[in-house]
Amino acid sequence: MLGNTKHADVAAGDAGFPERLDAVAADTESLLDRLLGAAPVAGERARPGRLLEAMRYASLGGGKRFRPFLAVEAAALFGGDRARALMVGAAVEFVHCYSLVHDDLPAMDNDDLRRGRPTTHKAFDDATAILAGDALLTLAFDVLGRPETHPDAAVRIDLVLALARASGLGGMVGGQMLDLAAEGRFNGNVPQPLDRAATETMESMKTGALLRFSCVGGAIVAGADKDAQAALDRYGTAVGKAFQVADDLLDAVGDAATVGKATGKDAGLHKATLVRIMGVDGARRALADLVAEAEAAVAPFGPKADILRAAARFVAERSH
Amino acid sequence: MLGNTKHADVAAGDAGFPERLDAVAADTESLLDRLLGAAPVAGERARPGRLLEAMRYASLGGGKRFRPFLAVEAAALFGGDRARALMVGAAVEFVHCYSLVHDDLPAMDNDDLRRGRPTTHKAFDDATAILAGDALLTLAFDVLGRPETHPDAAVRIDLVLALARASGLGGMVGGQMLDLAAEGRFNGNVPQPLDRAATETMESMKTGALLRFSCVGGAIVAGADKDAQAALDRYGTAVGKAFQVADDLLDAVGDAATVGKATGKDAGLHKATLVRIMGVDGARRALADLVAEAEAAVAPFGPKADILRAAARFVAERSH
Repeated sequence: MLGNTKHADVAAGDAGFPERLDAVAADTESLLDRLLGAAPVAGERARPGRLLEAMRYASLGGGKRFRPFLAVEAAALFGGDRARALMVGAAVEFVHCYSLVHDDLPAMDNDDLRRGRPTTHKAFDDATAILAGDALLTLAFDVLGRPETHPDAAVRIDLVLALARASGLGGMVGGQMLDLAAEGRFNGNVPQPLDRAATETMESMKTGALLRFSCVGGAIVAGADKDAQAALDRYGTAVGKAFQVADDLLDAVGDAATVGKATGKDAGLHKATLVRIMGVDGARRALADLVAEAEAAVAPFGPKADILRAAARFVAERSH
Repeated sequence: MLGNTKHADVAAGDAGFPERLDAVAADTESLLDRLLGAAPVAGERARPGRLLEAMRYASLGGGKRFRPFLAVEAAALFGGDRARALMVGAAVEFVHCYSLVHDDLPAMDNDDLRRGRPTTHKAFDDATAILAGDALLTLAFDVLGRPETHPDAAVRIDLVLALARASGLGGMVGGQMLDLAAEGRFNGNVPQPLDRAATETMESMKTGALLRFSCVGGAIVAGADKDAQAALDRYGTAVGKAFQVADDLLDAVGDAATVGKATGKDAGLHKATLVRIMGVDGARRALADLVAEAEAAVAPFGPKADILRAAARFVAERSH
């Protein structure tokens, strides 16, 4: 997740980045609140109160909404309708939030706190947290299926397939599995260190796939052609990698007070990270290369893509 | 889930029911096996072995595949393509299987055995079971999104939306939440008995919604019109209710050896069931009414619907 880097840290030439990030976050919050309303929609029998409350707890009131931001700004690059792009952003945010709820469970990472407040299973209970996660994941596909997301069913089905591939066995869930395995969870707590290639695969699935989907999904909903979608895929891939390297650097060298969580935790857990493999200086160089790669991917779109370039720099800059 | 009633119990005039149930089960098994292959599909980076193994463990080699049967036979009623209907059946079966994996977890029903073998979290571990369930749910939407399910994207998106509504907050997951609440799980283990209306709502969500989707989904994929879809919805609703009443009766009066699991468990758990509210005789009468209701719903389709009528009787007959 994004650290607590202040917006003021973003350099000049930010293409209005902080304001635009905040605007998407505000619009996303309103949309998620509406999608998690108390009234059942067609085909639903009832919305049980405790379950809805847990889903709202897990997804409202927090986060920079960086994934929705990527979806909205990727769509804007092609003149896409903002309301539709926000629906794509809401879907990806529901997937992101469900994954945090399940990852925090005692059987997984066993975390009691997230963003300074009790995790969902601490605020409710384990059973409710499992079900809330399941329902959030299901809701993501519900959102993509609605005509409000796009009038053309073919576009919506493209989004459903892309999100499913990014989120499941061959994407985010698979990446979480590889990460737990590397920690030695299935081998009597004996860490199974990953080499560089295996670490990159794990990270590209665990955190990269959803960030990449955000960019490509924004392009899809805006009607971008295949070449443009491929460019956004390259951009999203580079941003996803940069995101992970920056996160690892924060953990390795960040000051706990600045980062807002305990640092040095990865080393203690023998987690697979590129910083462990490349060293801090190597990781910093890799980060600069990744930002350049992200910028190059959107170079063909000219100044319209300035905001996406600023976003790539923002991701990298939160590492120091 | 379906009990272990032998096919031989089905009365004459069964429209070839046992053979057709077995045929769908065999075709479904092959399809699930193929969908859970080792090779990544487009958009997937890798399929981690342990996760795939757990998904296969949770979904292959068991069950009558009654939901896929309903989807295939509902589609057949409208001359729908069998291969496409099997894709719908596979999607609903993945949802059913994921729900069993999550329901069996220690934090939920804490069951060690299912169909006479260790539950997924016992055969693997809790973290793997959580992730396998998540990935199976995601795969269900992936399957519905594929062109193989139907060449028309509008049909596929109808299926996605219907499955999402049947499975999530306002459907199956919501029903499980209501059931846990009735058991007193969120009130210091003090049961909160449901009245008849609340029990019917809970059951219509927890088990009814997915059975209803199976029928309606089969109609949708076969291109049935809205009136015909509504008829299959009424049929599926009645079958879903009959399914639950028969299950409750089996628990209340069944012999453990015949049923294949401990009986009388619901009473011990103070579970909300219609048998508790209506008594055994009242429940038997209700069951007969539900079968008649299911038969009436498909009456307009004439002898072509004999197989669906036989299915309704099969559901009821497994109660004794």
